[in-house]
Amino acid sequence: MEMAAVGGTPDGGCSRLALTDADKQGLDVFAGWARAEGCAIARDRIGNVFAERPGQDPALPAVVVGSHLDTQPNGGKFDGAYGVLAGLEIVRTLNDHDVATRAPLLVASWSNEEGARFPHATTGSSVFSGALDLDAAFDQRSPEGARFEDELGRLGLAGSEEVGGREIAAYFELHIEQGPVLESTRTTIGVVTRGQGVRGLELAIGGIEGHAGTVPLDARRDPLIGAAEIVLETRARAQRVPGALATVGRLSLEPNSRAVIPGRVTMVVDLRHVDVATLDELEDDVRRLAEETTTRLGLGLEATTFLRVDPVQFDEASADSIRKVARRLDIPFADVVSGAVHDATRLESVAPTALVFVPCRDGVSHNPAEHADLRDLQAGCDVVLQAALDRAGVAHERSS
Amino acid sequence: MEMAAVGGTPDGGCSRLALTDADKQGLDVFAGWARAEGCAIARDRIGNVFAERPGQDPALPAVVVGSHLDTQPNGGKFDGAYGVLAGLEIVRTLNDHDVATRAPLLVASWSNEEGARFPHATTGSSVFSGALDLDAAFDQRSPEGARFEDELGRLGLAGSEEVGGREIAAYFELHIEQGPVLESTRTTIGVVTRGQGVRGLELAIGGIEGHAGTVPLDARRDPLIGAAEIVLETRARAQRVPGALATVGRLSLEPNSRAVIPGRVTMVVDLRHVDVATLDELEDDVRRLAEETTTRLGLGLEATTFLRVDPVQFDEASADSIRKVARRLDIPFADVVSGAVHDATRLESVAPTALVFVPCRDGVSHNPAEHADLRDLQAGCDVVLQAALDRAGVAHERSS
Repeated sequence: MEMAAVGGTPDGGCSRLALTDADKQGLDVFAGWARAEGCAIARDRIGNVFAERPGQDPALPAVVVGSHLDTQPNGGKFDGAYGVLAGLEIVRTLNDHDVATRAPLLVASWSNEEGARFPHATTGSSVFSGALDLDAAFDQRSPEGARFEDELGRLGLAGSEEVGGREIAAYFELHIEQGPVLESTRTTIGVVTRGQGVRGLELAIGGIEGHAGTVPLDARRDPLIGAAEIVLETRARAQRVPGALATVGRLSLEPNSRAVIPGRVTMVVDLRHVDVATLDELEDDVRRLAEETTTRLGLGLEATTFLRVDPVQFDEASADSIRKVARRLDIPFADVVSGAVHDATRLESVAPTALVFVPCRDGVSHNPAEHADLRDLQAGCDVVLQAALDRAGVAHERSS
Repeated sequence: MEMAAVGGTPDGGCSRLALTDADKQGLDVFAGWARAEGCAIARDRIGNVFAERPGQDPALPAVVVGSHLDTQPNGGKFDGAYGVLAGLEIVRTLNDHDVATRAPLLVASWSNEEGARFPHATTGSSVFSGALDLDAAFDQRSPEGARFEDELGRLGLAGSEEVGGREIAAYFELHIEQGPVLESTRTTIGVVTRGQGVRGLELAIGGIEGHAGTVPLDARRDPLIGAAEIVLETRARAQRVPGALATVGRLSLEPNSRAVIPGRVTMVVDLRHVDVATLDELEDDVRRLAEETTTRLGLGLEATTFLRVDPVQFDEASADSIRKVARRLDIPFADVVSGAVHDATRLESVAPTALVFVPCRDGVSHNPAEHADLRDLQAGCDVVLQAALDRAGVAHERSS
């Protein structure tokens, strides 16, 4: 709740857009808390922040627990922040109980996970895992024209550490589910075995702008007619593919004025599936649909796939370590699929990764109403604490 | 071209949004030019500006020539400005030739014709003609939250004269056609006999916001699906009504983010027809369509008709005065219908009104590319000059 007050909005939400003053403030608050627990703070060149609790054997690769502190413009208190603060809570618990680990323990906050202000979601973890070029990440621009690298510099968030230089023994991420499955099945722990792949396809449809009162219907080239057909037919086609999701969440008219036939419509189709071949087929199908529709209506089309995340199979041994702990602690758990992309989706390619979900109310996320139950959040921390300890190895503990 | 430089944009267009500094500057430039021709400047409480050239008999109601100086955000040089400056050109011509009229001659610039910054198009002429309440006009808000009356005060554009207090003997408005008919038929003067009625229907469609990666297709309440169906079916229904126009020029998603199923779509349907009964039927039909569609899809609906302009039959005697002059001057003319609403549409209810169109290139308007031929603009001035003189009565002219 203290972190939620940083960038807190009157409706109970959070606005800590990546590389804004509020984001910087959130990271500073986190770093202060971590230092108070004896952690050293390291930053890499893309703005990822690592709080390190030393292990008995500094040569061992670290066990990392993390997520992100940036939020959507009108986001909630838990998306991202839970995973970072769970890492801090684990450190505090180990300190409280005077437990030393053999391997170091790192709490990570990855830069620009949301992709809300700068376009590449999971920027920090993507560069760390090699999925995104550092220069491309630096060159991202915000809608108001700010450059990613310049904003890092302005806020003093860029460190000197090379990105991706650290070897990771295991990565754990706790996150609210952002969907309704766990809550509706009264399951506390979701063991994420697979992550859907995503394609972000932008369609820019060009027509001829004109006065709504003077151009006869048959003489029009109205791009909104094409866009509307594509919206409906994309959904119809996705419904015929089991497990597929298709969403048009962004759509804009130019000039967007009552009495003007639009000259251009830009829309983004978000496509998801757990199977990469099925996802590729669906993307091709929507591209063909867009071409056929615009050609038939005499409209122009530029189609760009600007986001491409392949489906992920999470490490089975890591998943099993979570299941074992949950069973031991008698906490209800189940395997689930992640519909969203997380930093864990990126880390999976460079470290054994466990992504762990806890329920959130009504599946609501990216919204001030986002809420998670304290007992569920606590259960998530307990499970990851034990699994992380198993990985890091206990060097000594206080006899009490 | 001098007026076009006020609020001029790099692409050759104009941006003099109502009650902005640029609008004020345009009105000041006009007032300066008019004063230099011996006119007195009067302003009424809603910001209409009148430049008066006295007549020999001050008791006679004035003959008014006018239009508006405000523009769309990315408008052209001619829409509106032509009609005002044509009035000024008529005054200059009468001065040059030392012609005195019996009735006073007024050049009017009506406030906020475009309705681009403040929602009510033809604000000034609507209040003048009694179609809009003064307080409702004052209370209009711009998207950034500015109040109409406050902006009038800030810019010093509000006069003390009561709105609509002047009796008008005849109103003449010259305007570019904003459509392709005159140009394609090589007609210089369009005598507007009728104006289409307009209904502006706002549909706010409510659904349930959600994560694009987690909510199954069949569990969604996606308002964009409803909006897309309404866009397509509205067009299909309008196509079955001869002479009807239907346009969706404004449509917005909330929150308009790639990975979020929209929670709300707001769209505006612009409907036009020259026959009021047909227009009413079409509006009812679209309202029923929106209700049926949203009910079937489990969506919410708020439907508001925020703009209601009935079709106008322009004064036949005034139209005939234009035809007679055009015939006398041997300028090609034809009767036309106005697809757009103009200040003349409002004035028609309080004065014998002639609306006169000249061609514009490719029918393009509300666009920096807007262009009209100098000879056509000149021909329009000549015709209205003669018709206005016929109405005002010539008191004396210089024998030359």
